[in-house]
Amino acid sequence: MAKVLVIGASGQIGKQATGKLLELGHHVIAPVRSPEKLSDIDNSNLSVIEQDLEKDFSSHFEGVDVVVFTAGSGGNTGADKTIMIDLWAAQKAVDYTKRAKVPKFIMVSSIGAGDPDSIQGEMRPYLVAKHVADEYLIKSGVNHIILRPGTLLNEPGTHLVRTDMPDNQDEAVIPREDVATAIVESVGRTSEDNLITYLFKGDEPISKVFD
Amino acid sequence: MAKVLVIGASGQIGKQATGKLLELGHHVIAPVRSPEKLSDIDNSNLSVIEQDLEKDFSSHFEGVDVVVFTAGSGGNTGADKTIMIDLWAAQKAVDYTKRAKVPKFIMVSSIGAGDPDSIQGEMRPYLVAKHVADEYLIKSGVNHIILRPGTLLNEPGTHLVRTDMPDNQDEAVIPREDVATAIVESVGRTSEDNLITYLFKGDEPISKVFD
Repeated sequence: MAKVLVIGASGQIGKQATGKLLELGHHVIAPVRSPEKLSDIDNSNLSVIEQDLEKDFSSHFEGVDVVVFTAGSGGNTGADKTIMIDLWAAQKAVDYTKRAKVPKFIMVSSIGAGDPDSIQGEMRPYLVAKHVADEYLIKSGVNHIILRPGTLLNEPGTHLVRTDMPDNQDEAVIPREDVATAIVESVGRTSEDNLITYLFKGDEPISKVFD
Repeated sequence: MAKVLVIGASGQIGKQATGKLLELGHHVIAPVRSPEKLSDIDNSNLSVIEQDLEKDFSSHFEGVDVVVFTAGSGGNTGADKTIMIDLWAAQKAVDYTKRAKVPKFIMVSSIGAGDPDSIQGEMRPYLVAKHVADEYLIKSGVNHIILRPGTLLNEPGTHLVRTDMPDNQDEAVIPREDVATAIVESVGRTSEDNLITYLFKGDEPISKVFD
């Protein structure tokens, strides 16, 4: 079983990922601003620590097997938080991971983060921040899995995905629960190869993507 | 005489730098969103081009000798513009500079951009964006001069600066005109060595800093 540091464990995806990791017997370290958001999870393998990500959070990385970064605004908070969390806290998480020699970093990124200029509209600053953070991770030398889900849905997961871009924009969607499952599969993945993948609703078992 | 691409030529520092460069006989290319802001400068060595920096601006770099980046919010516009201009347009300017083999890039950065975490308060997201852009330039391999002025003042320049951090925060200031002069001196600098320097009001001639 792995010791997994989930940054953003009280978020919509992070909390589902935390629950699934605990179910499998993993130990989860959850530095969160509001510990009460995880008070309904009763599991001795969960360590909840109060932590503001705008302050130094380097102390949580020692002895960790996998870092999951799923904190951030999803483009919905102010752009100042996008800079401080999606970009800056992400880059620091990569630095801390490298320093503590944690062997794997899983980044929850976004469709569009690969090429923010291809996107018009309000999401662009968010996608630029995600892009820059992803590039920082890629260039860090840290072994990484970058997940780029489509538009997130609040519906039960199907455990079935596709990783190629749908022709129809309306199909570029995925339930948050399936992103959480993809995180869990990424934690369990044994290959050391770096991986960057889109994630959309589809018909392939998620486990196959992370074989 | 050099062909200087001034990105942000209609800004408070950029316009003064443009004027001083033209006075010395340099050719200035000024891609700006609002050309009318430069309509009071009558000089055949000035090429004003209408350009939104959130769109592709790669076409202005060919045959250029020096790129000056002094566009941006100074922390006063919304954080979404901080991401799109101070960070993203800056990184693209570095990419375009590299691709066009322009031999020098002068970045107008800010005090605090070296270590944004040392600063508290509202300026922090802006300083993170400047930091990340500066680091991108440093790692690009492009020959660079990074200017990190203190708090900017709207008063006549003295042509005298200091480059060490004052003990007293109130002395960490500099007239915008002196930053413009520092840009001009940077353009004329013959050393190929990269340089990162603070700039505050002081008693050393600006020209000495860029010997």
